[in-house]
Amino acid sequence: MFFASDNGAPVPEPIMDALTRANQGQTLSYGADAPMARLRTQIREIFEAPDAQVHLVTTGTAANSLALALYTPPYGATLCHRHAHIQVDECGAPEFFSGGAKLLLVDGEHGKITPDTLTSALTQTDGSVHSVQPTALSLTNVTEAGTTYTTSELTALCALAKSHGLATHLDGARFANALAATNATPADMTWRAGVDVLTLGGTKNGLLGAEAIVLFDPAKSWELELRRKRAGHLSSKMRYVAAQMEAWFDGGYWLDMARHSNAMAARFAAGLASVEDAELLHPVQANIAFVRLPAAAHARAKAAGAVYSDLGGGASRLVTAWCTTPDEIDALLAAFRG
Amino acid sequence: MFFASDNGAPVPEPIMDALTRANQGQTLSYGADAPMARLRTQIREIFEAPDAQVHLVTTGTAANSLALALYTPPYGATLCHRHAHIQVDECGAPEFFSGGAKLLLVDGEHGKITPDTLTSALTQTDGSVHSVQPTALSLTNVTEAGTTYTTSELTALCALAKSHGLATHLDGARFANALAATNATPADMTWRAGVDVLTLGGTKNGLLGAEAIVLFDPAKSWELELRRKRAGHLSSKMRYVAAQMEAWFDGGYWLDMARHSNAMAARFAAGLASVEDAELLHPVQANIAFVRLPAAAHARAKAAGAVYSDLGGGASRLVTAWCTTPDEIDALLAAFRG
Amino acid sequence: MFFASDNGAPVPEPIMDALTRANQGQTLSYGADAPMARLRTQIREIFEAPDAQVHLVTTGTAANSLALALYTPPYGATLCHRHAHIQVDECGAPEFFSGGAKLLLVDGEHGKITPDTLTSALTQTDGSVHSVQPTALSLTNVTEAGTTYTTSELTALCALAKSHGLATHLDGARFANALAATNATPADMTWRAGVDVLTLGGTKNGLLGAEAIVLFDPAKSWELELRRKRAGHLSSKMRYVAAQMEAWFDGGYWLDMARHSNAMAARFAAGLASVEDAELLHPVQANIAFVRLPAAAHARAKAAGAVYSDLGGGASRLVTAWCTTPDEIDALLAAFRG
Amino acid sequence: MFFASDNGAPVPEPIMDALTRANQGQTLSYGADAPMARLRTQIREIFEAPDAQVHLVTTGTAANSLALALYTPPYGATLCHRHAHIQVDECGAPEFFSGGAKLLLVDGEHGKITPDTLTSALTQTDGSVHSVQPTALSLTNVTEAGTTYTTSELTALCALAKSHGLATHLDGARFANALAATNATPADMTWRAGVDVLTLGGTKNGLLGAEAIVLFDPAKSWELELRRKRAGHLSSKMRYVAAQMEAWFDGGYWLDMARHSNAMAARFAAGLASVEDAELLHPVQANIAFVRLPAAAHARAKAAGAVYSDLGGGASRLVTAWCTTPDEIDALLAAFRG
Repeated sequence: MFFASDNGAPVPEPIMDALTRANQGQTLSYGADAPMARLRTQIREIFEAPDAQVHLVTTGTAANSLALALYTPPYGATLCHRHAHIQVDECGAPEFFSGGAKLLLVDGEHGKITPDTLTSALTQTDGSVHSVQPTALSLTNVTEAGTTYTTSELTALCALAKSHGLATHLDGARFANALAATNATPADMTWRAGVDVLTLGGTKNGLLGAEAIVLFDPAKSWELELRRKRAGHLSSKMRYVAAQMEAWFDGGYWLDMARHSNAMAARFAAGLASVEDAELLHPVQANIAFVRLPAAAHARAKAAGAVYSDLGGGASRLVTAWCTTPDEIDALLAAFRG
Repeated sequence: MFFASDNGAPVPEPIMDALTRANQGQTLSYGADAPMARLRTQIREIFEAPDAQVHLVTTGTAANSLALALYTPPYGATLCHRHAHIQVDECGAPEFFSGGAKLLLVDGEHGKITPDTLTSALTQTDGSVHSVQPTALSLTNVTEAGTTYTTSELTALCALAKSHGLATHLDGARFANALAATNATPADMTWRAGVDVLTLGGTKNGLLGAEAIVLFDPAKSWELELRRKRAGHLSSKMRYVAAQMEAWFDGGYWLDMARHSNAMAARFAAGLASVEDAELLHPVQANIAFVRLPAAAHARAKAAGAVYSDLGGGASRLVTAWCTTPDEIDALLAAFRG
Repeated sequence: MFFASDNGAPVPEPIMDALTRANQGQTLSYGADAPMARLRTQIREIFEAPDAQVHLVTTGTAANSLALALYTPPYGATLCHRHAHIQVDECGAPEFFSGGAKLLLVDGEHGKITPDTLTSALTQTDGSVHSVQPTALSLTNVTEAGTTYTTSELTALCALAKSHGLATHLDGARFANALAATNATPADMTWRAGVDVLTLGGTKNGLLGAEAIVLFDPAKSWELELRRKRAGHLSSKMRYVAAQMEAWFDGGYWLDMARHSNAMAARFAAGLASVEDAELLHPVQANIAFVRLPAAAHARAKAAGAVYSDLGGGASRLVTAWCTTPDEIDALLAAFRG
Repeated sequence: MFFASDNGAPVPEPIMDALTRANQGQTLSYGADAPMARLRTQIREIFEAPDAQVHLVTTGTAANSLALALYTPPYGATLCHRHAHIQVDECGAPEFFSGGAKLLLVDGEHGKITPDTLTSALTQTDGSVHSVQPTALSLTNVTEAGTTYTTSELTALCALAKSHGLATHLDGARFANALAATNATPADMTWRAGVDVLTLGGTKNGLLGAEAIVLFDPAKSWELELRRKRAGHLSSKMRYVAAQMEAWFDGGYWLDMARHSNAMAARFAAGLASVEDAELLHPVQANIAFVRLPAAAHARAKAAGAVYSDLGGGASRLVTAWCTTPDEIDALLAAFRG
């Protein structure tokens, strides 16, 4: 009964097998290898974006910060939700990578920015030389609250951003879960909606450590290469990073895993209806549930071996993964029910 | 006949097996896992340093830059050899991680700093407010020229550095090869010689991507944690990084591999004596050889399928790895001989 | 009728005379001059702080950012009021000087932080490696809303800050006005209240461009020297900066000017009571007034030649200076009355 | 007998008078004042550059670093002479302002870069992702060795730089002295020679503290504004900075002063021929002399009250200023002669 995070899960067999397959002979390093070449082609096909540039790193924080540094100069600012991972959980990485640009915070219920809250946040600066200059909007799908943006919501936000001269970044640490939840295509969820750069996360959905920065503006590619190297994020033995992600895409395996973890969270949310005094704090739309429960319920679950995050005041965060089983969900619910 | 780099080699079986063993069940992330705990203990034992702190990253550039940022404030300077990896091959990573500190370059034959050249380099600054303030010395063993420092050489340089108030960093991207070449113990090569922080490289000696920052001053550990996170170098699924290195140390396997690659380079150097007009540019003391050869010799080797780096003017760099075979060396020499 | 800012005022005669007096013969540069030596002594006496270190720069933004950089490492955070000058009006200077540290925003009516809002703001981070680490509190007196902190309020906030391990900075861009408003001594308003470093502003109170960073912890002095030089804020002809401030302190002239500008703002606030539909948005406690007025009143004042800042919705900011006359205030009020 | 630096000189009467004239009434701040508007026009006329943008700061270090930050991204590099002020005397300011870009050092006798040494320095990087990317060349005229570049030398170096894709910066801390020495026009010495951005120094030639960044590419102006503000270098009471420089240009006063200080250095150099065992270390082409003398000569000069910098080994640097008198030169020479 492990619900602490989807990054606590093991790696599925097909990914491990891909590592073994990639482990043949000697090859040029730093991305001049066959798995990287194949992955690049694969991502371009999956995203219907023949000119997209693909760069791999091993953590989501690196992917987000490198992507944003391309679009936010030191005197610029990135707008993001008040609870965005880049604001709350990256120890200032966006500020580090950008040379000290600010994050300007946007409100919004259930972790979601709306056109109204974005418009309101843009009044934090006045355009004068005394203010930082907003240059980018960062959206997250699946959000930190476990909710999702539809493609039409993303499209509206990107259009508003562009009308203010902002570039657009999508933090897709759980991009597969967002696709699975909304049945959108990768293209619809990104460049067709107006997204300039995507952080495409694999680590939270079964990989050892692989995240792709997908640039829909290929002109930014060389700058990204230099920033990645300079940040120590150019892996010499890139084949082992690329091979993970190649196998992940293969046959739609990434979406299969995401659908499964989403389904487990949905099972949990549905079952919670019959738990006394349980309250969902946000709609459960992907693989994360925020719930408030009586202390006794928590105590029973912990005693039964459940692992998840306590947020104070009886609130908790639970995350399902590709390997979560219906039995685990049911056992957790049973413990909550008492 | 692949001699382009030791980071082009595949990963040996025992390391792959360790990944499989680590891939069991769910676990807490960000280093709160069993392999990381075991590795920390292992490194403390191997280095006879019970208080040492160990932090993992996946690239050598990250390890070097994070280590140096602890000891070089933005207004400081790190002294290093003119051809050090941190100066030449990291796209300015030390400057990035330190917030713009300078590298001050030290001369020295065959990639090695001497007390004389270090003393001379220290005169580049005058201690006034107009100068950056030297705060650290970075040494590399094995050097970029393929040579090694003995422990007594390191001890003398560290003592000189400390007498000028400098902290000391050892870039051990090929630390195992340096140990194998000199028969020094890990402790003798590091803290007993006066080294404050070690970049202990595994990637060039058989791992997929794992480097340890070993802090002999544990008080720096929390700052390093924060800087690592902020730089996007805190792997969530740390167990897969730690497990690689754990298996690497197991039974001295790291040194076995290093001894082998060193032996292959020595075989090459010895055989070169019988190649007409061949010249070694630096003593071959570990697993790298720099050689100047006639164009015809290069042409024959390339035609035979040899892969290595050309440096211009007939000079080349060749690197052996754990998987290099005597047959490959002999075939290369045969091609050179014509 | 100029109320746009106190930095639009000319420089009073005694300050200009001091420049002329300092302009004798040749002297060593970079602060090794007689006016700087005298000023240092003078500030130590005025602040009853014999060990304080004094460093001059020419802008308030530089003074604030250099002071904060001493106490906020890149992975740290400075807490400040949501409307603090360092957050709103310095184009990200604190982020630049600190290497990308965050500002964490604190709420509070009328520009003032309270123990409650500070306590609440400290919950924005959780102390884990994923969060930036709060390391400093920056207070402003006179606040951006034109209100003042009493020494007991400052003392309580500094004590709370220290109990959380935070250093304390006071942005005293209008420090003289705060002293004049509260009748506090310089020592009571700073180190006795628990302030570690003060930005002591002269430019808004009659100087051409001179701000002192007063360090109550002298151990930080050398680092400040280096950061100041590195930021291009070490003036070679320091005597002309020091001489301004020396004359300003002389005979309490700084406080005379501040008392005058405060009195002019008080006259304005008092007179506003008889202006129909006029509303003060914040208490007028120093030399700044925020007022909401009907459009017709604004139109009459502008037609009469009044210059001040419009904030939207009928709200305006008016600032008095050492040279503001009672007649100007009365003329403005008359225009508002119509 | 003060020869320590030209920044030890007092400020001439016409400049002080200009401050008094500027000190009338209240005005908008941050550069929206009449003296700044007039100065902008004046510089455009003097440089025959109607589109040039002019931004003032108060120190040369700030001017150089801000100018370079426009042309050198964090992953870039500025090439400069090994002894350039930006490398040796600014405590790492270019690295700070650029976000950690490197300076790559160029050799050259007497402080001057040549096409050959520049070409050679460009081989320090290989264009790969592992290297920083050279993006700018910074030249200094008058050089740190007291020599000057002719306009044809500058033209050749700028052309070579541009052929490698580098932008060009001229550090003109002593620009007036360079013009006076070479009889070049401001346009010929800058944009006609291929210079993109000029640091035009006034402080070493009579001003209290005023340096202009002259952008020959006006498209960079807004970015410079933001970087200047963010670095704390936007003076609120700009009129006092602008007025200094306006009076300096007026009637060619800047060149009169420079011609005088150059003439004083020439008088010194000529007189030195009759000083036994005296040796000029560099040609004296402007207002700086480097000389090696016997210890006894130095002792006599110091005893007579001469102030100048000792560089070790009997070498010294002497700088003349607008206020240096022939009598002072003669007295110094007499003391040297004994």
